[in-house]
Amino acid sequence: MIDLETIWKRFRPNVEKELQYVVGRSALPMYSMMRYHMGWVDERGRTRRNTAGKRLRPVLCLLACQSLGGNWRQALPAAAALELVHNFSLIHDDIQDSSPERRGRPTVWSVWGKPQAINVGDAMHALALSSLLRLEETGVTHAKMVRAARILGEASLRLSEGQFRDIAYETRMDVKMDDYLAMISGKTAALFSGSLEVGAVLATDDEWAITRLRDFGQSLGMTFQVHDDVLSIWGDEKTTGKPSGSDILMKKKSLPVVCALEKAGSADRERLREVYQQESLKPGDVEEVLGILDRAGARRHAQEIGANYYREAISGIDDLTITTPAKSELQAIAAFLLEREF
Amino acid sequence: MIDLETIWKRFRPNVEKELQYVVGRSALPMYSMMRYHMGWVDERGRTRRNTAGKRLRPVLCLLACQSLGGNWRQALPAAAALELVHNFSLIHDDIQDSSPERRGRPTVWSVWGKPQAINVGDAMHALALSSLLRLEETGVTHAKMVRAARILGEASLRLSEGQFRDIAYETRMDVKMDDYLAMISGKTAALFSGSLEVGAVLATDDEWAITRLRDFGQSLGMTFQVHDDVLSIWGDEKTTGKPSGSDILMKKKSLPVVCALEKAGSADRERLREVYQQESLKPGDVEEVLGILDRAGARRHAQEIGANYYREAISGIDDLTITTPAKSELQAIAAFLLEREF
Repeated sequence: MIDLETIWKRFRPNVEKELQYVVGRSALPMYSMMRYHMGWVDERGRTRRNTAGKRLRPVLCLLACQSLGGNWRQALPAAAALELVHNFSLIHDDIQDSSPERRGRPTVWSVWGKPQAINVGDAMHALALSSLLRLEETGVTHAKMVRAARILGEASLRLSEGQFRDIAYETRMDVKMDDYLAMISGKTAALFSGSLEVGAVLATDDEWAITRLRDFGQSLGMTFQVHDDVLSIWGDEKTTGKPSGSDILMKKKSLPVVCALEKAGSADRERLREVYQQESLKPGDVEEVLGILDRAGARRHAQEIGANYYREAISGIDDLTITTPAKSELQAIAAFLLEREF
Repeated sequence: MIDLETIWKRFRPNVEKELQYVVGRSALPMYSMMRYHMGWVDERGRTRRNTAGKRLRPVLCLLACQSLGGNWRQALPAAAALELVHNFSLIHDDIQDSSPERRGRPTVWSVWGKPQAINVGDAMHALALSSLLRLEETGVTHAKMVRAARILGEASLRLSEGQFRDIAYETRMDVKMDDYLAMISGKTAALFSGSLEVGAVLATDDEWAITRLRDFGQSLGMTFQVHDDVLSIWGDEKTTGKPSGSDILMKKKSLPVVCALEKAGSADRERLREVYQQESLKPGDVEEVLGILDRAGARRHAQEIGANYYREAISGIDDLTITTPAKSELQAIAAFLLEREF
């Protein structure tokens, strides 16, 4: 039985140190705002106990590197870069959705205003590239650096495409399962996939193995987002840190809603459309939508889709010759992402 | 006498072709919004006569490359990348300032809303890296590509820092000349400097020459922004395409205002502070500020500062051994940036 704690203990302090090095370079208040978002300081810049962020993408990157026999410490600058892309995107996402809180704390924009929060995100996006290029200092070849930069840039672009679809779908009632899958493939799976791929590229020249891990990351990202959509509606607010029902209030076409739009009885489907076509939802609407989702079996259906992606992920690395503990660790993380309650 | 038209004719069609290749890759409406911002299509995606943007940074990059004996066509992907960083920043800048128009057309956010405009800018930022990495296809070595990526990332970061200062200064009354110079050094000169440096790096290994052109770009950027500040207040709206007085309405600490805060008589200085400390300006305030700037000689003073940066730029490349037409062309562009009326 794999203990996830031991994986996190191996990598996370090193990831955190690398991130703090890259972000901590200036006295300009913008950097203090980044440190706030990363969870290292409070709104006034005072050090706090770090409780923000799982650093899932860097851990996956480093584990991929280790699993193929690479020196994972060499990959730390890339792992940090991937986490910075993820976090720049969260900062902008919170602005776009006007979300007041993230992980139980006020969002960057709600403390310092939207114009400056845009700059904080842009700067973090630029820092991701600077971080990646520190691979030169850990002895990575220029050829591998160029390849890693290409993966990072592509993942960042696909992430923006996914975010774009997510917002575009808010005002569309004809969102089908394929549209939904294209959206989360961009907004979530692209960076998971890129994380595994970069870790693999830095470890080996075996293109077959690199492709296996990249595809594992893609399926893992899909598993993660599908489960996230379920948690956002039926999870416990206390453990998820997100107000449940907020996806519905934002009229997000999250997976359970897309399922219900396809599978609910015709009266329920018609009513769901009516509710979602309003300018904004009224009191009682969220409860009504929850009832429609229940009757359509949307929760079970979504969970099945998540389980399918989980199985796809697991079977994709089954015939891959990698060190046994690393393979079990990757599988354990996949199982965790399918079943987590936060 | 150098005709600027001949320089633009040499480079601009090639820059435009490269940009269109990089941006035009997808049917997702987000890319159509990028094409709109770049001036190639109208709001409904129909091709229009391109009148948007001087492509100053790419032209400077390619001219720098040519001036040091490089093959400028090889540098086209980098030139396009620099223009994309500039334009992603404009898209976000318009959101931050809530500017309804740019170059006489509605801004991206005012057509498609702020949340999607944030995504369009983010995607363009990511595309800049993809564009740069096309240097592999023009035969640039991995070592040079890594160096070019480093310059691009650093310029993008300094640009965000400058934008951050610009907005932070709106609510500060203690902005001194040094603060102002730090702000424009980031928001404008960093990308000019990076453009010249990348062009030089792709042409030569002569570090002394690279540094000369990088510093030329820095001074040129300062000249450009100082003159831009003067034009924004005293330029002709018809030729600049910007409503004059908008910098004052936004309470921007542009150079003439910073000059007046330092040099105006004590009564005028006190009054200027009062006007700028209001939540928003009242009718008649802009005219009153213009009067204060006039009495303080702010226009002449700002023009002198611009002329100093111009001289610094020119003298910095004076002893550089580069092909004579290229040197005259760089000098001609500098003179144009000091004296242009649009």
